[in-house]
Amino acid sequence: MSDSTSITMKDIARDLGVSVATVSRALKDSPRISAEKREEIKRYAREHNFFPNIIAESLRKSKVQPIKIIGVIIPQLNHFYFSSILSGIEEEASLRGYRLMVAQSQENYENEVNICRAFSESKVCGIIVSQAKNTAKYDHFQRLIDQGVPLVFYDRISTGVNASRVVVDDYMGAYAAVTHLIETGCKRIAYYGTSLTMEIGKNRYNGYRDALLKHGMQPDDQLIKNCDNRADAETITPDVMRLPQPPDAFFAVNDDTAIGILYSCKRMGFHIPEDVSICGFTNGQRAIACDPMLTTVEQRGIRVGEEAASILIDQVEGTLPKDKVEKRVVRTRLIIRGTTR
Amino acid sequence: MSDSTSITMKDIARDLGVSVATVSRALKDSPRISAEKREEIKRYAREHNFFPNIIAESLRKSKVQPIKIIGVIIPQLNHFYFSSILSGIEEEASLRGYRLMVAQSQENYENEVNICRAFSESKVCGIIVSQAKNTAKYDHFQRLIDQGVPLVFYDRISTGVNASRVVVDDYMGAYAAVTHLIETGCKRIAYYGTSLTMEIGKNRYNGYRDALLKHGMQPDDQLIKNCDNRADAETITPDVMRLPQPPDAFFAVNDDTAIGILYSCKRMGFHIPEDVSICGFTNGQRAIACDPMLTTVEQRGIRVGEEAASILIDQVEGTLPKDKVEKRVVRTRLIIRGTTR
Repeated sequence: MSDSTSITMKDIARDLGVSVATVSRALKDSPRISAEKREEIKRYAREHNFFPNIIAESLRKSKVQPIKIIGVIIPQLNHFYFSSILSGIEEEASLRGYRLMVAQSQENYENEVNICRAFSESKVCGIIVSQAKNTAKYDHFQRLIDQGVPLVFYDRISTGVNASRVVVDDYMGAYAAVTHLIETGCKRIAYYGTSLTMEIGKNRYNGYRDALLKHGMQPDDQLIKNCDNRADAETITPDVMRLPQPPDAFFAVNDDTAIGILYSCKRMGFHIPEDVSICGFTNGQRAIACDPMLTTVEQRGIRVGEEAASILIDQVEGTLPKDKVEKRVVRTRLIIRGTTR
Repeated sequence: MSDSTSITMKDIARDLGVSVATVSRALKDSPRISAEKREEIKRYAREHNFFPNIIAESLRKSKVQPIKIIGVIIPQLNHFYFSSILSGIEEEASLRGYRLMVAQSQENYENEVNICRAFSESKVCGIIVSQAKNTAKYDHFQRLIDQGVPLVFYDRISTGVNASRVVVDDYMGAYAAVTHLIETGCKRIAYYGTSLTMEIGKNRYNGYRDALLKHGMQPDDQLIKNCDNRADAETITPDVMRLPQPPDAFFAVNDDTAIGILYSCKRMGFHIPEDVSICGFTNGQRAIACDPMLTTVEQRGIRVGEEAASILIDQVEGTLPKDKVEKRVVRTRLIIRGTTR
């Protein structure tokens, strides 16, 4: 081992059998590293008198190059999935020495155009964006690409420009959820989802359909509803449950809708999950607040954010060619709780 | 009315009897303006051929002065209350032509120091911050103030530096909640809160105690617990409910804790709110996902963020003197739902 006065992150990494990035993350309290591992690394660093000189590090960086700024456009900050993604972007960016400029479009196309302009004037080195719901023209994005500003889309993908993107595996998430319902004995599985014109809606529906077909079941139009929020779910579920052949399970495209189904069924006297199984998609704070807790597909916003920032920074630094269109898919995870058998 | 080709925001404001700020906000789809009012203003603008030339406006601004950047330090982005506050800061800042640089401290003092340094190097015009839980030295904040960078604290107030601050009215929020419990017939009200060494803990406890005293009740030490999360609440509540004289109501300092109490009591066979009333504090997404929905004190994160940004920008622009320490308190609101009678 090196002399204790000159131990480096590299030494710590070698001694503990982890990567230098893991040591750096642990010392910065990154939630990406488990609490136990962080404590182990921090203890080892303390015991070997290693104190990262953050100020010196920051000064050194700023001498070599001006601080680089990434522009981030979020439809709405006050939204669990988007704030998780922002958290992941911020973490990856700060670990790699970048700062974030953040703006919300409020789901408004004009605001989005305005933000792109302001980011461009602020000389951001790249932009990470999920477009507003009503964005149907893409000149503001194309202009940035033409100026050589790399763009990475997350969650909502623009079909109008050819840029890098990070999405979650909606198809496999839905497929795994519906397979779990089938394997726990459900025979008639309803689907509540968004319009099939949206990528998300299409991919999740296809995952649902293919899981049924794979197990010898046919999708039944009576059980497939265009419904993606709690209020609508509470309105339509009583009629669905009064069909001559009611469903014994529901797969919903988000947790909010699943919770609407859950409380509708409970109010009608059904027991969950004995009479009816329910699975959502998101795994936000609501999923563990409802009773019983919701089985759901975890959407991993933090990971999506980290991947988006990682692509962008690699393009800015030339590790990835700027004009390469990089498409990454983050795997979802099925979280089994009390609303399924 | 003016000629339709030259109608201005001022004209629209006058014709509809609202302020110019309201018109500007409505045209930018600010959620601060109700959906109906926004639609009314946007319709009127459309009917009178008013299209705000956002690009021209943005260009004009950037000619007069470089875009000003506010630095925002958030302990954790992936946290409902903080992301609501950030949303409010972003909204106010963008309406007034400012941009945000955002960083999370991950509740780590060293990260916070590093961020302050980076913000200072990035020439931010001011900083809005909620300090990390383990911050106990304040040189990094004092240095910024000494450099003439205005600082505004939100939520967690630094006792070590004398700077402007925005908090919610914790005392009145707790007082109103406990008064509601008393007025709906509760006789023995338990309190689950944070340490009295923290401002928030002290103020909410005092509100609880004073509401009891005002109604001729005495606080009972057996019913006052240091508990501020769901896991702990689920651990201790069964013992509390088995006391010789168990409580018939709980006031908890956050929704998470309240939900722990709720499910503990339900598992023990108590009916909510017939046997036991429960009131939380936050009003996040969890509050409407639990069953029954939670009565709680709304903490109004968006409003806190708007106030913080407003103080900072006023100080930057000289409307408020830079060295004036401005203290604002945002009123809380009691939201009555299904966990109280």
